[in-house]
Amino acid sequence: MKNNNLPIGIFDSGLGGLTTVKEFIKILPNENIVYFGDTGRVPYGTKSQKIIIKYAKQDINFLKFKNVKIIIIACGTVSSIVPKISTFDLKLVSTVKPTINAAALATKNNRIGIIGTNATIRSSTYKNELEKINKNFFVCQKACPMFVPLVENGITNENDPVAMEIVRRYLEEFKNKNIDTLILGCTHYPMLKQVIRKFLPSNITFVDSGKETAKFTANILLKKDLLNSSKKPGKYNFFISDEVSIFKEQAKRFLKLEKFSVNEVSIEKF
Amino acid sequence: MKNNNLPIGIFDSGLGGLTTVKEFIKILPNENIVYFGDTGRVPYGTKSQKIIIKYAKQDINFLKFKNVKIIIIACGTVSSIVPKISTFDLKLVSTVKPTINAAALATKNNRIGIIGTNATIRSSTYKNELEKINKNFFVCQKACPMFVPLVENGITNENDPVAMEIVRRYLEEFKNKNIDTLILGCTHYPMLKQVIRKFLPSNITFVDSGKETAKFTANILLKKDLLNSSKKPGKYNFFISDEVSIFKEQAKRFLKLEKFSVNEVSIEKF
Repeated sequence: MKNNNLPIGIFDSGLGGLTTVKEFIKILPNENIVYFGDTGRVPYGTKSQKIIIKYAKQDINFLKFKNVKIIIIACGTVSSIVPKISTFDLKLVSTVKPTINAAALATKNNRIGIIGTNATIRSSTYKNELEKINKNFFVCQKACPMFVPLVENGITNENDPVAMEIVRRYLEEFKNKNIDTLILGCTHYPMLKQVIRKFLPSNITFVDSGKETAKFTANILLKKDLLNSSKKPGKYNFFISDEVSIFKEQAKRFLKLEKFSVNEVSIEKF
Repeated sequence: MKNNNLPIGIFDSGLGGLTTVKEFIKILPNENIVYFGDTGRVPYGTKSQKIIIKYAKQDINFLKFKNVKIIIIACGTVSSIVPKISTFDLKLVSTVKPTINAAALATKNNRIGIIGTNATIRSSTYKNELEKINKNFFVCQKACPMFVPLVENGITNENDPVAMEIVRRYLEEFKNKNIDTLILGCTHYPMLKQVIRKFLPSNITFVDSGKETAKFTANILLKKDLLNSSKKPGKYNFFISDEVSIFKEQAKRFLKLEKFSVNEVSIEKF
């Protein structure tokens, strides 16, 4: 039995994953989406691998329960430990493979930078996977733990002295590394793109994990003949683990959607 | 049956409550302490009232299970909504009453400022309770959501331009309010005291909720004849909801304790 009309499941620790949802809507406008954001336990990137695995398993179980045809991990932190989350019955797409593939294609001088949360950088997953593609890649990585609070508090303007100074502290060391490609390894980070752009040399190509993951998924669905055959716009159902009101406003403003639903779910039961 | 030798239970969303534990050890060195820090779900102050109530009830149930004689809410955010958490069988001490009593005593011109997390300021609890003590009090309050990430990332030096600029943004409006007393309404904030001190007029008295809560609790235990009769140093058992290794280091450094235990607990089961 084909499952073409089942929804795509996407999850993140909170709001960051909406940057990924936006790309999915752009590339796959006829797909139905079920999104889970763990707003009651956000952030993940400051926590231990053990607790992230526990939470990710619950997030995945919830999306399975919602009968999705594929699951997208729209969270750089969870993606970086995905080999430790076994699912045998459903395709899991993490941000790692699409992102490193794009970076490997983009670089001309084989010098790549990676930024992410503490947990992502500690795992070294992006770095290790890049070096598997090409052992001549020079890869440098840096954890930027203040970037998520900056985004969550709206401090993202390219002229904001706090945003600029924090970007400088983390990325100063990249300036003399001669990288030509930078992986934004957390789905929050595209919102800081202008500040990072202003600070780093203008020749550096940014790889946005949400955008690459959407393109990658479209290809998988095409190959497996799992694309939705409907010609109507997709339906969007959001679930979060905290109150819906604030999220509803943010999703409306950020995704510019007219019709969608937001519901609360007790995620620890899954 | 008297319960004098039972431990005091203290909880917080994470590490902030350690500033309170430090004051308890100073004032009540012979008391045994059981501490719970919800490091797996930190922070609380950015979340909704509904989810904070849910988490706080689990935290309290865990401490009851540990058979403590009194429970201290070492978290300004939970304290600000404590009337919504009913416990009939055990004394709950929040930071609100000790802190507002101390502020009411400290002010000479009846003008008091309050800073706290989004959730704390949204509740207006500290403000309302102060105005109940004296309707002539002029009270101004301000949410400072970037203060917790600053502290958690160690950006607390009085000469740090990021810390100084963020303090300026939040507290600029207090400069012309002629307050003589400022309530630090979150147990993280004492770690930013030097930066705030440098920015605000030097005549302002700071009220530290952890310190006041420890003094207040000592009085309750004395009045109820519940002080521990032991002359030996207290025993310290910490429980957290994420991995213990990082916490262990931080507790050791911050509390300067030689002997203590740290264990992980699945808090959602309580």
